[in-house]
Amino acid sequence: MHLFYQDQLPEIKFLDQAESKHCIKVMRRQVGDEINIIDGKGTFYKAKITNANPKKCEFEVTETTKEAKPSFHRHLAIAPTKNMDRMEWLIEKATEMGIDEISFFQSFHSERKIIKIDRLEKKVISALKQSLKAKKPILNEIVPFNKVLDSTSAEIKLIAYVDFENKVHMRNELSEEQNTLILIGPEGDFTPEEVDMAAGKGFEKVSLGNSRLRTETAALAAVHLMNLAME
Amino acid sequence: MHLFYQDQLPEIKFLDQAESKHCIKVMRRQVGDEINIIDGKGTFYKAKITNANPKKCEFEVTETTKEAKPSFHRHLAIAPTKNMDRMEWLIEKATEMGIDEISFFQSFHSERKIIKIDRLEKKVISALKQSLKAKKPILNEIVPFNKVLDSTSAEIKLIAYVDFENKVHMRNELSEEQNTLILIGPEGDFTPEEVDMAAGKGFEKVSLGNSRLRTETAALAAVHLMNLAME
Repeated sequence: MHLFYQDQLPEIKFLDQAESKHCIKVMRRQVGDEINIIDGKGTFYKAKITNANPKKCEFEVTETTKEAKPSFHRHLAIAPTKNMDRMEWLIEKATEMGIDEISFFQSFHSERKIIKIDRLEKKVISALKQSLKAKKPILNEIVPFNKVLDSTSAEIKLIAYVDFENKVHMRNELSEEQNTLILIGPEGDFTPEEVDMAAGKGFEKVSLGNSRLRTETAALAAVHLMNLAME
Repeated sequence: MHLFYQDQLPEIKFLDQAESKHCIKVMRRQVGDEINIIDGKGTFYKAKITNANPKKCEFEVTETTKEAKPSFHRHLAIAPTKNMDRMEWLIEKATEMGIDEISFFQSFHSERKIIKIDRLEKKVISALKQSLKAKKPILNEIVPFNKVLDSTSAEIKLIAYVDFENKVHMRNELSEEQNTLILIGPEGDFTPEEVDMAAGKGFEKVSLGNSRLRTETAALAAVHLMNLAME
C-alpha cells in the first residue's frame, strides 16, 4: 500500500506539488481512483481522486481511521553524531519501530552543534509512509544539555550511562503506562558532571547491555526497548 | 582504545601491510610501544612493537585474554535487500550488538541473488574493532532457501512471519542456553509455501511486534532480542 502525505487534512483536500506529481505522473492514478493519505497527526484517510492534476491532485475523503495510540509517550534525546548519515539512519529506524518525540542536545563532548531539522523531517515522512504509520514523531531543534533536563514532564527519566557499581538494565526501569525520556550521549560519552546534573534532576542511570555501542546504535536499542515495554 | 587485526595469531607475529601502515604511519607507533590486537577468533592480545616497519610491523605478545563466550550461538539468516548499503549497515550494527553467524539466502521474493562476502568481511572487522570485540561472526555465502532450513543444528528455529491467528512474539521463544536461528524474509516477505516448508522442518512462526519493519530493521530487532535473552 502506498501512502500519500497531507498534513493540512481535513481542511485541505489536495496533494502538494511533489505528491501530486508522484500520484499522477509516476503512479498514473486517474479520476475516481482510490488513494490512501496520512496527515502525520495520527489519522489515515481513504480518498477518491476528483481532479487528476499533476500539480494539484484534488480528492474527496471517503473514510477516516484513527491510529491506535501508544500506551505512553516515547521520547529520545540524543547528542547528534558528527556524521549526519548516522543520524538520518537513526531517525528512519526509530520512526519505523515507533517513537513519539526526538530531541537533540549539545553536551561537553558533542561533535556537532547544528542540526538541519528540515532534512530530517523528510526522512521521517518517508519512513512513516514505508511503515504505514499515521503519526509523525515530533522533532525538536538542538538545545544545550541542561535545557533537555528541565523541559520534560516524563514520569520515567533515564540516562544511558554505565555505573559499574550499580548496573541497572534499561528494560528493568520501563513501565507500560508511564511517559519515558531516555538520554543518549555523544561518542565521547557524558562527563561525570553532566551525569550528576541529570541525577540531580531525577534521571536514573541505566545500561543498554554488555556491548559497547555507537551513539546511534545505543539510541535504536533504547527505542526498541521502549516499544517492547508496550507490547 | 584502538584494536589491530591479525587472524593468523598466535602463529604470525606481524601486522599485514594495511594495518602496519596504519600503526606506523598514521598512529606513529614506535619500537617498544604497546598495541592491542584481536585475532577474530575470540582472543585479545597485548603486544610490544619490535620492528616499526610500515609495511610489516613486527611485535611480541605480552599478554593474551580470552573473550567471554556468549551463552548460546546467535545465528541470523536473511534474504539480502536489493540495496547493499542496507545490508552493510545491518552487518555493522549486528556485529556491534553481538552475533555469531550470519547467513544469506535466496527465496521466492528475493531481489538480490549475489552477495560479495569480501566487502562485508571488511565491515565486520571494522565494527569488531569499534565495539572492542575479539570474535568475528561467521559470514556464509548465499544459498537457496531450502538449504538454510536443512543445514542448521540450532535447538530454537524461528521464522519471522506474522500468523495473525496465533501471534507469538519472538522474545517469548528464546531461552538463555539454547542455540538459536532466526530467518528474516525479503521485502516481499516469505511465500506461504516457504513458511510451510520451514514449519515442516521445525521452524516456529514469530512476530517482532506491531510495527511494519523493513528487512534490515526486522533483522536488527531480532539480533537485539537474542542479546537481551542472554543478559
